[in-house]
Amino acid sequence: METASVTFLPHNRTISISKGETLIRAALQAGVHINASCGGGGVCGKCRVRLEEGAVSDGISERLSEEDVAKGYRLACLSKIDGDITVRVPVESTIDAAALNQPMAPRCTAKIKTFDFNTLKEKGLFIAPVEKIYLELAPPDAVNNMPDVSRLVDALRYQHHLRRLELTLPTIRRLPAELRRDNFRVTVTVVKPVRADGKNLITNIQAGDHSAENYALAVDIGTTTVYVQLIDLITGEIKGERGDFNGQISYGEDVISRIMYGEKPEGLTTLQSVVVATINRLIGKILNKSGINRQDIATITIAGNTTMTQLLLAIDPSSLRRAPYVPAATLYPPFLAHTIGLDLAEHTIVLLFPQVSSYVGGDIVAGVMGTGMYRDDELTLFLDIGTNAEIVVGNKDWLACAACSAGPAFEGGGIEFGMRASKGAIEDFSLDPLSWEPMLVTVGGAKPRGICGSGLLTMVALMFEMGVIDNSGKFNRGLGSKRIRQGHHGVWEYVLSWRDDTDIDRDITLNEVDIQNLIRAKGAIYSGCMTLLAEVGFDMDQIERIILAGGFGSYIDLEKAMTLGLLPEVDPERVLFIGNGSLLGARMSALTNKIRYDVVEVTKKMTNFELSETQSYMSNYMAAAFIPHTNIEKFPRLRDRLEARKKLMTGNQM
Amino acid sequence: METASVTFLPHNRTISISKGETLIRAALQAGVHINASCGGGGVCGKCRVRLEEGAVSDGISERLSEEDVAKGYRLACLSKIDGDITVRVPVESTIDAAALNQPMAPRCTAKIKTFDFNTLKEKGLFIAPVEKIYLELAPPDAVNNMPDVSRLVDALRYQHHLRRLELTLPTIRRLPAELRRDNFRVTVTVVKPVRADGKNLITNIQAGDHSAENYALAVDIGTTTVYVQLIDLITGEIKGERGDFNGQISYGEDVISRIMYGEKPEGLTTLQSVVVATINRLIGKILNKSGINRQDIATITIAGNTTMTQLLLAIDPSSLRRAPYVPAATLYPPFLAHTIGLDLAEHTIVLLFPQVSSYVGGDIVAGVMGTGMYRDDELTLFLDIGTNAEIVVGNKDWLACAACSAGPAFEGGGIEFGMRASKGAIEDFSLDPLSWEPMLVTVGGAKPRGICGSGLLTMVALMFEMGVIDNSGKFNRGLGSKRIRQGHHGVWEYVLSWRDDTDIDRDITLNEVDIQNLIRAKGAIYSGCMTLLAEVGFDMDQIERIILAGGFGSYIDLEKAMTLGLLPEVDPERVLFIGNGSLLGARMSALTNKIRYDVVEVTKKMTNFELSETQSYMSNYMAAAFIPHTNIEKFPRLRDRLEARKKLMTGNQM
Repeated sequence: METASVTFLPHNRTISISKGETLIRAALQAGVHINASCGGGGVCGKCRVRLEEGAVSDGISERLSEEDVAKGYRLACLSKIDGDITVRVPVESTIDAAALNQPMAPRCTAKIKTFDFNTLKEKGLFIAPVEKIYLELAPPDAVNNMPDVSRLVDALRYQHHLRRLELTLPTIRRLPAELRRDNFRVTVTVVKPVRADGKNLITNIQAGDHSAENYALAVDIGTTTVYVQLIDLITGEIKGERGDFNGQISYGEDVISRIMYGEKPEGLTTLQSVVVATINRLIGKILNKSGINRQDIATITIAGNTTMTQLLLAIDPSSLRRAPYVPAATLYPPFLAHTIGLDLAEHTIVLLFPQVSSYVGGDIVAGVMGTGMYRDDELTLFLDIGTNAEIVVGNKDWLACAACSAGPAFEGGGIEFGMRASKGAIEDFSLDPLSWEPMLVTVGGAKPRGICGSGLLTMVALMFEMGVIDNSGKFNRGLGSKRIRQGHHGVWEYVLSWRDDTDIDRDITLNEVDIQNLIRAKGAIYSGCMTLLAEVGFDMDQIERIILAGGFGSYIDLEKAMTLGLLPEVDPERVLFIGNGSLLGARMSALTNKIRYDVVEVTKKMTNFELSETQSYMSNYMAAAFIPHTNIEKFPRLRDRLEARKKLMTGNQM
Repeated sequence: METASVTFLPHNRTISISKGETLIRAALQAGVHINASCGGGGVCGKCRVRLEEGAVSDGISERLSEEDVAKGYRLACLSKIDGDITVRVPVESTIDAAALNQPMAPRCTAKIKTFDFNTLKEKGLFIAPVEKIYLELAPPDAVNNMPDVSRLVDALRYQHHLRRLELTLPTIRRLPAELRRDNFRVTVTVVKPVRADGKNLITNIQAGDHSAENYALAVDIGTTTVYVQLIDLITGEIKGERGDFNGQISYGEDVISRIMYGEKPEGLTTLQSVVVATINRLIGKILNKSGINRQDIATITIAGNTTMTQLLLAIDPSSLRRAPYVPAATLYPPFLAHTIGLDLAEHTIVLLFPQVSSYVGGDIVAGVMGTGMYRDDELTLFLDIGTNAEIVVGNKDWLACAACSAGPAFEGGGIEFGMRASKGAIEDFSLDPLSWEPMLVTVGGAKPRGICGSGLLTMVALMFEMGVIDNSGKFNRGLGSKRIRQGHHGVWEYVLSWRDDTDIDRDITLNEVDIQNLIRAKGAIYSGCMTLLAEVGFDMDQIERIILAGGFGSYIDLEKAMTLGLLPEVDPERVLFIGNGSLLGARMSALTNKIRYDVVEVTKKMTNFELSETQSYMSNYMAAAFIPHTNIEKFPRLRDRLEARKKLMTGNQM
């Protein structure tokens, strides 16, 4: 991607950013605050900046007079960066001179690790999972009137060297008609075996040449959200992607309440059909949009946590929530999608990611497989933050895992205005250190509707660092901003966006209960990592790499995650963010049988630790229930910044 | 079975017969005629005989006065043989002295070959197809909280040495609850692989000890009739058996008309559901009566001809009736019974007999497997006579097969009073050579309702030999019996039973059209055998053994079959009658995986000949369209008898 250089005045701070990004994103990356309360859609008109060198696309709105535009004023949220520029942030919309020198950490987004088809091929990891083979068979005559199946199998055996072929009954049923529809020219779908001694399963037969139409679906079933991707098995491309809330949400927000609902009469059936309906709706939308034929989908690879997996299969999950926490199975056999109600062709096969334990499920295994950490030398900490948080540590020699209940805060759950990272979610944030006015950036630049995980993390970390809240998450009652107030039930809160600027006709706020929930969530995760590492005889310092997965927005700020005490302070270069690890793994597994082959061994290798059975977990948790931690010495960079800021503010007041 | 000796006077003919048989059966076996028109139920009172030595059970009826009984008179049809006896057939109910010396062939029932479980074991052919294993597992605790599936699999692996275990999704679904229902004491059903490298499939899991309840079903789907047997897999016993007309009969009597119906819109679906309904009804009756639980049925082995098999599976059969006659498949994979609508447990697996060609199907393969002829040295002719007739010839080194359209006469079809061998069917017959009065024996000793295949064969052969019909099947118009008359449409017929003696309130007759149909049927079969043998370079003389299969009654008279020209004249000792070969094979296959293992090779080995493509077939057929054949020299024993009879009758008239 081409980049451009952007210099902000009077800060005199220069950053490099991808062309096409907005100026407001550039400001956030540079750590430059510009007041902005409408989320980035050009509505509030507050984010005026003046171009001093270079030019931008767009940036003009009714909020700017012709005269202003002539002078070089633009709205930062609407301005797209085309080349190198210098812009001045007007005094009325920024901090004063003293604050310009504050030791605010520069924006540090985690590197997003992308895996693609070519990488798989280059690394020798590509083993085609499904082949579509076009055959031109000799039509039968009196000399050769062998059965249809034998005619087909012989061609595959002698022309394509495929052995151990097996047909399913539905395929045999369709064979006579399909063979004769286009004079014995047909395309067969062969689902290849994972092991050399396995069977080549002929699952579909189509008249004519359909060998170029070879697709699979990858699905992540999260407790909160479900994502579906449509994958071209020939090019590796993602041909479509959709996500939505898991329809089971109405029956309980977390896995425990789902399990309890599943124990009611008809509860299991209801939960099963509801999640299948969610998947079906997403598949329908993707197929409608892509114009791809359901018949051309050979497999659907699904990853989900253990509860989600058992509910999808209508397997009683009640033992999952009661000690000694026994799942039904680790490995599940492939089965036909329509047998569980998935609205796919009769031949489409479901491939499920295996589970490790009741609380380390297929989603985590998928993440581990997708990142490839099980093949690497580096000691890696893999952290998947969803409604539950799961931790995997290890490398190619060993793997240990554990789960902790983080609560749904990072996915926007249990937060008054929490939402997932969809249109209108505040995903990035900055704060004016004098006026305490916010700068909001929403997903899609729409009017604010709520706060998603990455926005929440950023705002709480920033408020702490700027002294708006203390290390237990309580607001500084004496800052004199009308945005900091007592809301209903007397709970203190910060008004992110006034009613008129929002899309929901209410003030959008962040309150102390929300912050408490976030602190509990990050505390559970941090102490989980500490405890698991201690169990296997390691320390946070020895971690060579952190891989973060989860349903944050795309703009997770690593330095803020460390400020909050969610992550240990490591070199940000050693942190990768993979987004939805479960979906990534499902896609990788759909693309190559190498993953399906390896996953059996990896699952066996992953040693599960029950944190609830570990005495030190609770004391670690208590210590982590502050920002960043009871022991600030574990976060030396933050400690230094806090001290520097303290000096600066004290100096300022003098 | 214990036998007794019965001597008939004045014939002075002695036979040996199983104790418990009726005297009328003994007379038939001895070739002694006793007038009897009610079928054997003691109603007509005509079959009076007088005991001269020994005693019988029963035999007494209101038709006999006390005085008669005191004198030793009994009704032959009601008298059960307990020990050695001598009886006199009164003059008024038998032929005159001259006729006593007629060279009528003695009754010669084919030996019924029975196969049982112990024979399989003795011959080393028993390989358990399904095992039910009772396990007492350690319940999970904090130290061992492995998943339910792993707990189960480990026990099977380490305690029972079972490898390559695979569970189906429905079993996994039921596992958590079943394990906990009786404190981790469960019975697992393991369907064993046919090949050593196959998988042990765990198909069912039941709380508690059900290891003694291990059953399978064997099914023969004939074009006309469907039979179901319930088999105890532990003892080999048949726990129940039922047969009924194939519900598809309303949609066409033979395979061609079924195929044509199947080509109509919804036709295939209709035929599929109708035959499944027939099977379900039979299964329901058997299970109700036996009290055996549907859950304890592991497999259902089904044999049927190629059309019946494709219709059962809803596979378009249209290519079966058009040259070059291509079936969909030879081998079908196992599949779950409920997926085709069979009313069985979710886990019950269907195992289908493979097909050889469009007209040599799974029923014939089952017969070949059931008789074991593919393992023997003897050159064997296997003949399955149903709506179609199929011929297999060969031994352990080679097998050739062919099919011919016999028409349904041997199953009672196309015969005015034809019926299958059920209660009231005339299954045996003899004729007084002077009065032309008949002796009728029906299935179950009930009042006559119609004629089944074995009865038809016996009566036509006997009438020919006694000069009642000529070699083209026309009645001798000059015999002067009121039983021989012109019926409706002027067709000549013989009245077997007068209206008042029947159960259907109509005269039951045999007419010339019926006889023509039978002659055509037997001609097709005989010429089929001739043609197939010639194709493989053999002659009827070289056949070392004949195995007859088909839906005749149990009392097929071999000598009569030879008289008719259905079978070549061979030593009756070399003829075996196995009844329903398809059902026999299905049962054998359900009992041992040895058969399932062998069947793949046997099916490959069977070389199919299309008789319609063979020029000599039609001329062979024309020559065989007489009783017994155009060339009487092929039937020297019959020729001698006919000549002897001619002399006797001429002498008698002089």
